[in-house]
Amino acid sequence: MTTQSRGKFITIEGTEGVGKSTNIAFIKAWFEAKNISLLHTREPGGTPFAEEIRELLLSQREEQVDAKSELLLMYAARAQHVSQKIKPALEQRQWVLCDRFSDASFAYQGAGRALGLNKLSELDQWVLEGFKPDLTILLDLPVEVGLSRAQERGPIDRFEEEKVEFFEQVRQGYLQIAQQEPERMKIVDARGSLEKVQQQIEQVLIHFYQQQVTGS
Amino acid sequence: MTTQSRGKFITIEGTEGVGKSTNIAFIKAWFEAKNISLLHTREPGGTPFAEEIRELLLSQREEQVDAKSELLLMYAARAQHVSQKIKPALEQRQWVLCDRFSDASFAYQGAGRALGLNKLSELDQWVLEGFKPDLTILLDLPVEVGLSRAQERGPIDRFEEEKVEFFEQVRQGYLQIAQQEPERMKIVDARGSLEKVQQQIEQVLIHFYQQQVTGS
Ligand SMILES: Nc1ncnc2c1ncn2[C@@H]1O[C@H](COP(=O)(O)OP(=O)(O)OP(=O)(O)O)[C@@H](O)[C@H]1O
Ligand SMILES: Nc1ncnc2c1ncn2[C@@H]1O[C@H](COP(=O)(O)OP(=O)(O)OP(=O)(O)O)[C@@H](O)[C@H]1O
Ligand SMILES: [Mg+2]
Ligand SMILES: [Mg+2]
Repeated sequence: MTTQSRGKFITIEGTEGVGKSTNIAFIKAWFEAKNISLLHTREPGGTPFAEEIRELLLSQREEQVDAKSELLLMYAARAQHVSQKIKPALEQRQWVLCDRFSDASFAYQGAGRALGLNKLSELDQWVLEGFKPDLTILLDLPVEVGLSRAQERGPIDRFEEEKVEFFEQVRQGYLQIAQQEPERMKIVDARGSLEKVQQQIEQVLIHFYQQQVTGS
Repeated sequence: MTTQSRGKFITIEGTEGVGKSTNIAFIKAWFEAKNISLLHTREPGGTPFAEEIRELLLSQREEQVDAKSELLLMYAARAQHVSQKIKPALEQRQWVLCDRFSDASFAYQGAGRALGLNKLSELDQWVLEGFKPDLTILLDLPVEVGLSRAQERGPIDRFEEEKVEFFEQVRQGYLQIAQQEPERMKIVDARGSLEKVQQQIEQVLIHFYQQQVTGS
């Protein structure tokens, strides 16, 4: 590997139950075999304060939560996570692997809650000032398949109780971002067996790793 | 009084311990004598969800809280409060009296935390889209006097542990807004006895009430 001025920031995205958390371990192991250790973190959360915000966001409540309020909480957690954990790690040449990041806000709050991707961009720019992942793996799956995988896992949170149509919009939101930023966001078909999914993820990682090595 | 299309929104502002909460009762009673009932609320907070965000913001913690994260939490609480409580009340011709509002964010996070009043304006516009109080009463007091009044009240929160210089910047931030928007924000000298302070508040209320009656 060439000398890097900072670590790389990789994120994994997709609707409920597509296999994000499951495949984190695979990605970590793949890079470790290349002698690159990944700091594994997740959103919303990643620091004690941001995890408290996560609790607020995910807990079931009677009060209707305003879409903007929800989005501002997401970005409050993200601002903390980025400033206190992600950026300091990258600056020390540590690579970071995050389970969900800004793309999830674009897909869930921008597309799913219909705030619009433009309104999302404005807030993202205000908070992150252009900070983005170097690579994003999007696990794509028909909504019903993911929900049924997730349901087998136990009690549902405030997002998981949404209707199928909501997640359909979220999925389309993700696909739209992938279309707009094909260099950064790579789509992986998550329908097959775990082995098949990981074969595709590996192709993405090989391609990304090559780019880093050649510095292109 | 002329027929109103919606209720009026009044806020009270100032640094720690200037007497905001103390004078709320006086303002309420003054309007009640005019047959106008005020819905009394406060920020951060005002709905159960927003009060949970308030808890997060005010509780003491070891983790350093990023200035943007703090501000986003404030506006998450505010977006919820405005959409679920303040606007619905105003639309039903109910008057609303709020202990702190956006000006506090401009003063504490914009001036005090040095994010800058312009950066604040951008976020305020994104969230509130121009929504502002009809009248704001700013209780102005030398910082030390307010802090010593507040300290007599009991244990301090995460803001009250800040240094005097921080509150000095906050005070200057408030005074700057009052200079920019003299029609909306009225400065009351809070140094005197409660009686003297309330005499000044009454002058402000008489003036504001006259404007409503004459519709000017
Ligand atoms: N390719 C696969 N085929 C079948 N089941 C899978 C596959 N990948 C993951 N699973 C299973 O689906 C469930 C959801 O996976 P996982 O928790 O990794 O999804 P997730 O994307 O992290 O979900 P969430 O969005 O809720 O965090 C788990 O029970 C997991 O074992
Ligand atoms: N004019 C005054 N002279 C002397 N003491 C006062 C005066 N006004 C209020 N106080 C006292 O100062 C203390 C702080 O007042 P209060 O709680 O109303 O301030 P506040 O602005 O709401 O403070 P905070 O910013 O902490 O909410 C109280 O003990 C109150 O009784
Ligand atoms: Mg997961
Ligand atoms: Mg008070």
